[in-house]
Amino acid sequence: MKKTLLLTSLALLVSAQASAQTWVLTNAEKGTDKGDWRITSQQLNLKGAPFSIEQKVLHGGKQEGSKIITLASENGLTIVLSPTRGMNLLHAQGFGVRLGWDSPVKEVVNPAFINLESRNGLGWLEGFNEMMVRCGYEWTGHPTTADGQLYTLHGKAGNTPASRVEVEVSESAPYEIRIRGLIKESTFKKADLQTMTELRYVPGSNSFSLHDVLTNHADYPHDYQIIYHSNFGKPILEEGARFIAPLANVSPFNDYAKGGMKAWNTYSAPTKDFDEMVFNLTPLADANQQTLAAVINKAGDKGAAIGFNVSQLPVLTMWKNTDTEKQGYVTGIEPGTSYAYPVTIEREQKRVKQLAPGASTQFDLTYTLLHSSEQVADVEKQVAAIQGDKQTQASDTPIAKE
Amino acid sequence: MKKTLLLTSLALLVSAQASAQTWVLTNAEKGTDKGDWRITSQQLNLKGAPFSIEQKVLHGGKQEGSKIITLASENGLTIVLSPTRGMNLLHAQGFGVRLGWDSPVKEVVNPAFINLESRNGLGWLEGFNEMMVRCGYEWTGHPTTADGQLYTLHGKAGNTPASRVEVEVSESAPYEIRIRGLIKESTFKKADLQTMTELRYVPGSNSFSLHDVLTNHADYPHDYQIIYHSNFGKPILEEGARFIAPLANVSPFNDYAKGGMKAWNTYSAPTKDFDEMVFNLTPLADANQQTLAAVINKAGDKGAAIGFNVSQLPVLTMWKNTDTEKQGYVTGIEPGTSYAYPVTIEREQKRVKQLAPGASTQFDLTYTLLHSSEQVADVEKQVAAIQGDKQTQASDTPIAKE
Amino acid sequence: MKKTLLLTSLALLVSAQASAQTWVLTNAEKGTDKGDWRITSQQLNLKGAPFSIEQKVLHGGKQEGSKIITLASENGLTIVLSPTRGMNLLHAQGFGVRLGWDSPVKEVVNPAFINLESRNGLGWLEGFNEMMVRCGYEWTGHPTTADGQLYTLHGKAGNTPASRVEVEVSESAPYEIRIRGLIKESTFKKADLQTMTELRYVPGSNSFSLHDVLTNHADYPHDYQIIYHSNFGKPILEEGARFIAPLANVSPFNDYAKGGMKAWNTYSAPTKDFDEMVFNLTPLADANQQTLAAVINKAGDKGAAIGFNVSQLPVLTMWKNTDTEKQGYVTGIEPGTSYAYPVTIEREQKRVKQLAPGASTQFDLTYTLLHSSEQVADVEKQVAAIQGDKQTQASDTPIAKE
Repeated sequence: MKKTLLLTSLALLVSAQASAQTWVLTNAEKGTDKGDWRITSQQLNLKGAPFSIEQKVLHGGKQEGSKIITLASENGLTIVLSPTRGMNLLHAQGFGVRLGWDSPVKEVVNPAFINLESRNGLGWLEGFNEMMVRCGYEWTGHPTTADGQLYTLHGKAGNTPASRVEVEVSESAPYEIRIRGLIKESTFKKADLQTMTELRYVPGSNSFSLHDVLTNHADYPHDYQIIYHSNFGKPILEEGARFIAPLANVSPFNDYAKGGMKAWNTYSAPTKDFDEMVFNLTPLADANQQTLAAVINKAGDKGAAIGFNVSQLPVLTMWKNTDTEKQGYVTGIEPGTSYAYPVTIEREQKRVKQLAPGASTQFDLTYTLLHSSEQVADVEKQVAAIQGDKQTQASDTPIAKE
Repeated sequence: MKKTLLLTSLALLVSAQASAQTWVLTNAEKGTDKGDWRITSQQLNLKGAPFSIEQKVLHGGKQEGSKIITLASENGLTIVLSPTRGMNLLHAQGFGVRLGWDSPVKEVVNPAFINLESRNGLGWLEGFNEMMVRCGYEWTGHPTTADGQLYTLHGKAGNTPASRVEVEVSESAPYEIRIRGLIKESTFKKADLQTMTELRYVPGSNSFSLHDVLTNHADYPHDYQIIYHSNFGKPILEEGARFIAPLANVSPFNDYAKGGMKAWNTYSAPTKDFDEMVFNLTPLADANQQTLAAVINKAGDKGAAIGFNVSQLPVLTMWKNTDTEKQGYVTGIEPGTSYAYPVTIEREQKRVKQLAPGASTQFDLTYTLLHSSEQVADVEKQVAAIQGDKQTQASDTPIAKE
Repeated sequence: MKKTLLLTSLALLVSAQASAQTWVLTNAEKGTDKGDWRITSQQLNLKGAPFSIEQKVLHGGKQEGSKIITLASENGLTIVLSPTRGMNLLHAQGFGVRLGWDSPVKEVVNPAFINLESRNGLGWLEGFNEMMVRCGYEWTGHPTTADGQLYTLHGKAGNTPASRVEVEVSESAPYEIRIRGLIKESTFKKADLQTMTELRYVPGSNSFSLHDVLTNHADYPHDYQIIYHSNFGKPILEEGARFIAPLANVSPFNDYAKGGMKAWNTYSAPTKDFDEMVFNLTPLADANQQTLAAVINKAGDKGAAIGFNVSQLPVLTMWKNTDTEKQGYVTGIEPGTSYAYPVTIEREQKRVKQLAPGASTQFDLTYTLLHSSEQVADVEKQVAAIQGDKQTQASDTPIAKE
């Protein structure tokens, strides 16, 4: 009954609105949330590629009360994100490929059950299983104690429930879908950084994009850092898989990664005791400051590519966690303003950015699921074009010591 | 249908009870909570000033699951409090005046999302936006590490969900409303301090009062501290607004506040880089130990006054946070047993109180919203009467060094 | 309506299943939970001793959202456990006796409101009121800082919501009931210890048993520790109550307990300033490695006995907390792999166990409520039979210094 009424009023909206329909799923200002909720392109009478968008409240274990939104495009991608966990992307799949990985953490952990300060600042690991986590914005990187406080691993945004969530569907073909979520890092005396995240997807396509606007709502300048921690495992990651990106230079994150410099951009099979190696990269970009990085499988017919802008995200971390499968066989492509060093080092080395009072900055990333050798070849071509005849400088010396 | 039944049984209650009707909204002993709930004076057939009392479960962001109770008196005050946040008062308004302020924290943050130990004991700031927070009772004041543990800023009561909440409406004119909430600080081996808080309000009036009874349920004596952290911004606070109270003495809380001693009791406009100054006051009182403190606007036709008893709350803190508006332009009038120093200093200086096993102590405060020059003048007269010809001793030396 | 449908399908299940019916109450994999739920033997058409099993979602205070399951056998025991709190047993009662105790903590505290790291690692005490808490499995014992992190009191399992909960009722007399709950301690890079807990009870009987299977799901060996912290107060505990168990030796946990060695196995009335004494015991066992320990009242007609296997749980802690009633008058019988020392000491003294990748280990304990002198005498006989003519070595020297 209620549903019918809702649909009727939607129908009215359709005729009333010129460009797009919007559903507000969560509105902290009014104190409301739609809870379980669903729309389909069929209900909306849209003629394009069929899709559905569904919000679900999860139960069980430490995911009690966590919400997920599933955007399912019948012939395209199914993308799952979690408003409760900072609009992080859990995984995306389609065309026979999965973007994501298998963490020992299986639940969509509600931040209410996470103490980020536990394990000496590594509590974040108790919820980490996403394909993309926003690591920021108040700080990011490895934990450290500075200014008398514990800067916990990778900041708080990824464990902050969204204050406002809305879904927008364009009224005209190809019916682009936008899902927005507002992440507030607002603490009296400390910060008022607010990020309006946005995911855009055209039903049927093999790529989606993020358009996040970070605003400093305070009357004082405020530092910020961000790493878009994007993680891929099987079926893309495998023995012989490769990492590609146009690069000015590469260096090991620490002494352990030195040992992996020779073959830093190819992957081994799951390897016991490998643990993780991290490489610091400086991307090259085209005239518009656009660049991309990708991981592609051995056969070169599957992959994940991320396009980003180096004026927004100047540095790139490659995280190689090719340990055993149960340990989490995964690689990270992590465009950011910072490397993964503690904030103290990032400050010293001048990678911590600042926003003036009231100022905003934007981050645009495009994720493409590659599912054919043509698509992979095209990405390789783009990488080569940006690289041109420039050499990638490889250094064996980490730029910092934790 | 359910509602009709409820009203019928209420009607029976009305005739059955001699003095008042009571609704139990939350009862942890039985594991129950009414969730969204509402009554109105009309439903109750009360002839006085019309009112409604409503409980609402909030959603969105970090306020997911937080409850608020709104007591709305049509021609009087609308008072909003949160059972989830220790029965703290969010704000009160009426007669064209608002008691409250604008914190960068906008949500009614569920303590499940707050780690009081974060930021080296300043996690409390992630939820601070109330007009009145109870800072206590196990401890209060600035954070410190002592006895091997972190005493977090302003204790835990303000971030403790109420175990029992009940609403009582008198059956006879003027139909006084009482809202009670039980705050338990009960930890095996550590404390069993329980505070039955009570808000009283007569519909139509411009004042309300708190009557909190703190009981030590343990078999051992237990220390306690309390600060009633009461905070006022616009429209009362403005350039030229004044703080008034009958005082034996005033001194700066720390070296920074020394610089503000000259004009400590008048306020500036929002001032960049002002941050905060805190002043320690010793109130004078009348023969019944009653006193009052108020902040009044420049024109002297708006204000907030707090009446309290110095035998219960012997010291008074004035918090001047006249920084920019977005930073939180606000002043605090904070009657307490303690100043805001860490518990270690408060112990040394003998301001930490103790309750014998089974013993109770009470705190009574009256908040008045002043909305005319007559009311302001009357408060000024009361202050002057208590001050009499006694001088307020001003010292430039803080009584302690953090 | 829904209920009727449910019952119909249950009826079908009954005829379809050969051995037992199963209800999945919580399933994190599917994101579902039944919330409030109930079955009765009558509904199931079972002819044996009547029983009901009910799940209830609690509200109020810090138990907001906590779930309890009550297994009530009309002529037997009523056992209450909490899926939200690691399937801990809150209490059991029947035959005029209660297994459990009275903590100052009265609520079934939702772990979302507990910071285990607070109070320098003693946050666990803010929720402690159970008759049986699982203290493990990643670590247990008194808090300590080691390897740069805080090992909080008694680990995390007891404050971890169950990821999967199911109730199974045998189809054939005597209709044994099994309640299972999966407790996951899964953290990326750190641990993937999963414990499938199981409670078994035959309606009408005066005992129940636990059968917990701990599995290391990681690809690396992992340490584990467990203490089954089982706690009994009135009416069993009283002046003149006795602790009995077949023992190879007994020694005080620390210097304070030295002073209690003379009468370590008898109990005083509630005693002001007694605080707690802890004794380390090495149990003797029969040829099958089975043993038991019990606390029995003065008259010898009431008691609680725990049977366990020393190949699984080789050490035994006796916790004597005969302080005042409001402080929590209680004694603990705590079979475990470890004593209550910090993990650092337990490692040094080689009591920390390890599980190979993929390996499981099981813990079986039988709790018996003794409600007659015959039953008590029988337990005493069993203890005596295992003790035989072996002496219990008593040492006055603690085996370690915290």
